[in-house]
Amino acid sequence: MTELNAVLEAATKDFDNSLERLFKLVRIPSISTDPAYAAECEKAANAIVDDLKGLGFKAQVRPTPGRPMVVAHYTPKEATKDTPHLLFYGHYDVQPADPLELWTTPPFEPTIKTDGKVKRMYGRGTSDDKGQFMTFVEAARAWIRTTGTLPIRATFLIEGEEESGSPSLVPFLKANAKELSCDAAFVCDTNMWDPKTPAITTRLRGMAREEVTITGPRIDLHSGMYGGPAMNPIRVLSKVIAALHDKTGKVTIPGFYDGVSDLPKQTKKQWQSLKFSEAKFLKDVGLKLPAGEKGKSVLEQIWARPTAEVNGIWGGYTGVGTKTVLPSKAHAKFTFRLVGRQNPEKVLKAFRSFVKGLVPKDCKVEFAGGNGSPATEIPEDNPFIAKSARALKDEFRRDTVLMGSGGSIPICRFFKDILGMDSILVGFALTDDAIHSPNEKYDLESYRRGIRSWVRIMGEFGK
Amino acid sequence: MTELNAVLEAATKDFDNSLERLFKLVRIPSISTDPAYAAECEKAANAIVDDLKGLGFKAQVRPTPGRPMVVAHYTPKEATKDTPHLLFYGHYDVQPADPLELWTTPPFEPTIKTDGKVKRMYGRGTSDDKGQFMTFVEAARAWIRTTGTLPIRATFLIEGEEESGSPSLVPFLKANAKELSCDAAFVCDTNMWDPKTPAITTRLRGMAREEVTITGPRIDLHSGMYGGPAMNPIRVLSKVIAALHDKTGKVTIPGFYDGVSDLPKQTKKQWQSLKFSEAKFLKDVGLKLPAGEKGKSVLEQIWARPTAEVNGIWGGYTGVGTKTVLPSKAHAKFTFRLVGRQNPEKVLKAFRSFVKGLVPKDCKVEFAGGNGSPATEIPEDNPFIAKSARALKDEFRRDTVLMGSGGSIPICRFFKDILGMDSILVGFALTDDAIHSPNEKYDLESYRRGIRSWVRIMGEFGK
Repeated sequence: MTELNAVLEAATKDFDNSLERLFKLVRIPSISTDPAYAAECEKAANAIVDDLKGLGFKAQVRPTPGRPMVVAHYTPKEATKDTPHLLFYGHYDVQPADPLELWTTPPFEPTIKTDGKVKRMYGRGTSDDKGQFMTFVEAARAWIRTTGTLPIRATFLIEGEEESGSPSLVPFLKANAKELSCDAAFVCDTNMWDPKTPAITTRLRGMAREEVTITGPRIDLHSGMYGGPAMNPIRVLSKVIAALHDKTGKVTIPGFYDGVSDLPKQTKKQWQSLKFSEAKFLKDVGLKLPAGEKGKSVLEQIWARPTAEVNGIWGGYTGVGTKTVLPSKAHAKFTFRLVGRQNPEKVLKAFRSFVKGLVPKDCKVEFAGGNGSPATEIPEDNPFIAKSARALKDEFRRDTVLMGSGGSIPICRFFKDILGMDSILVGFALTDDAIHSPNEKYDLESYRRGIRSWVRIMGEFGK
Repeated sequence: MTELNAVLEAATKDFDNSLERLFKLVRIPSISTDPAYAAECEKAANAIVDDLKGLGFKAQVRPTPGRPMVVAHYTPKEATKDTPHLLFYGHYDVQPADPLELWTTPPFEPTIKTDGKVKRMYGRGTSDDKGQFMTFVEAARAWIRTTGTLPIRATFLIEGEEESGSPSLVPFLKANAKELSCDAAFVCDTNMWDPKTPAITTRLRGMAREEVTITGPRIDLHSGMYGGPAMNPIRVLSKVIAALHDKTGKVTIPGFYDGVSDLPKQTKKQWQSLKFSEAKFLKDVGLKLPAGEKGKSVLEQIWARPTAEVNGIWGGYTGVGTKTVLPSKAHAKFTFRLVGRQNPEKVLKAFRSFVKGLVPKDCKVEFAGGNGSPATEIPEDNPFIAKSARALKDEFRRDTVLMGSGGSIPICRFFKDILGMDSILVGFALTDDAIHSPNEKYDLESYRRGIRSWVRIMGEFGK
């Protein structure tokens, strides 16, 4: 049997152990956005480094002002200057698990459930992104255990701040540009087209974020004594949010669409050929009516149109029962998904003046946490895409779909700008994985075929 | 020296002990709206009963489906059928203390501070309503300790659910109508006109309350994967709140103003003569512009116009940092202040259909906790008002102002409808007492002269 088949067989034989290694990681609540979990992030980083050292990687936990980076290198003894050097990127940090009461199994105690023929593992990070990056870790393990080496030069970069805007990433890439520059980067944080069809994502939306606080009265007031003459900041904030979109679903912030261009006819055609079911996509999450821009398909709304979204709002009394308070402050968290050449700084600037224009003279508005990253598109004629698409087709026996994604993986932009390499986005998640939601899951098939796919891709580039 | 002066002198001499007795009550966190504090409410009720028994009252803690009532009776030995029988009402329950971080002293550890010449006690309930109802308890104590009896028949009714809508009150009044029916009721839960000028409140706004929950997607979603096509319930809720008022500050709910009549010219004139400073009223709470209906004075907005207010809003991620979630649910708590003959049930019914009209087909809206009570007006020619106004004038050496209040004391309406007696609202709080807010306070002068005022009023009716 060929070397490749031997490695594939080894990976399949070792699958139960691959699962247990992933579960060990999922049990660590490495939430990056909440400082209370900083130690858990350290713990996760150390666990990954210990594992990679065991495989013969030069692996280190590298400190940053925030959560640490995991950096690991593997150079085959037989490597020549022609041996391709590939970077593999993932992130070990996860989203907060709240609202906890909606989880049917503990978020940090991975649990396997079988629904008909489909086996799924449930837990925060099973899909985003621990389960995903462990696919290339396990593929490397299979190669090294079977052949004693990797067919390529490999650098693993696994960060711990992806879910909180990667504040330390750019400085880290700049400070370590020489060490981290490879021929190309593989990012495992995206979806397949469907459970049977592999995909490479070539379009990603950017994101800008801002938190807004409106202050009305300087203290909370009695809504009887002051209700009427005293302005309620929740009313002001609601007017802002209500004014963000017009009747056609377009964002009303002046200049918001600067840098957004219409979809090329050819791409539009290609996406139509995917026969994406808008009705099913919405029905799966309990909705019927597309809420985005009228006249745009749902795929276009997600892959090629920007958004203005409220991710959270709070103000006044939110406890049990009634408190007749007229609150002093109201808060909301906003994120904007960006496409094309939209500039995050310009979008936030336009948003701030839009908000200020809606706040009454004697109310105060404060902005916090404003930052962002632009959208990115990987040219579809990139040579690494062709080889990867072929390897994926070999595994799944289906043509690989070149798709877009509504999510933001700013790292692709940074890899290009700082390290001069393209990113190939190959992932095995599914749209119903409920990432960022209660009961996040990852299909066992996603994990198994993900591992096998990376075995093939590494082999393909090692030829 | 007259008997009255002897009692007044005794009350003044005993003031330090009166303070300590009040502080003992303030130290009990008797929050009625949060079930977690049920035992503390029991504790407060028992403390009051023990104190009144010591004065010779027939006092009992009377159970209800919610927090217990305190009922106490005192009949002088010399009482004849002509001896007036007066009911004195207050409430021992308090508002929640949050946001705790804004208190400069512990909310349930009463603390006296001196600002220039003015001495104030700080703590939740010092003003609303423990400090207020203790004024008539201390007045009774002074009479009984000095003369061995009260000059009148007295019934004390001190409830424990005023801050949570008094759900058990109406059934309790109905079940005990004979026992609780008196010649008139004195309610001590209102303000003076200013620190030097006593007031009797003859107008009170009613209130209706409702909690609204909007559900969009059936689970929280990733704002990248679904942002655009998926409707965000915070957007829907914001549209509802933004649509509640028009540009002139009028509430837009169809039929909302049914039963609201314009202010009689004479009352309007009387209120103008009070020389109320709108600028100062707003400046005290950090505002400049009246937010109520255009063309109405601030006093009219508070005393004679209805409101639609949001007391709290929450939805999505409200923790530290960013979570790019598109939430499944958004919630808000609403209260409506009612005037004239506005009907609470009709107002809530109109509000519900107003909201339903703004919710997209595939979002769900739920309503909870809806209930309310109408506004009330006490005829100014009521004989008990004249006598009380005279007694107050004797104490403060100033004419007593007959005023309105923006707050809601539904009990007045129930006393009239169920027990057939008018309510005389005599209180000693001040607009800057910050009731329902952090750092609630009560001036020591309010407490001292409040006690002396009740000594005089009891004496006046005992003549």
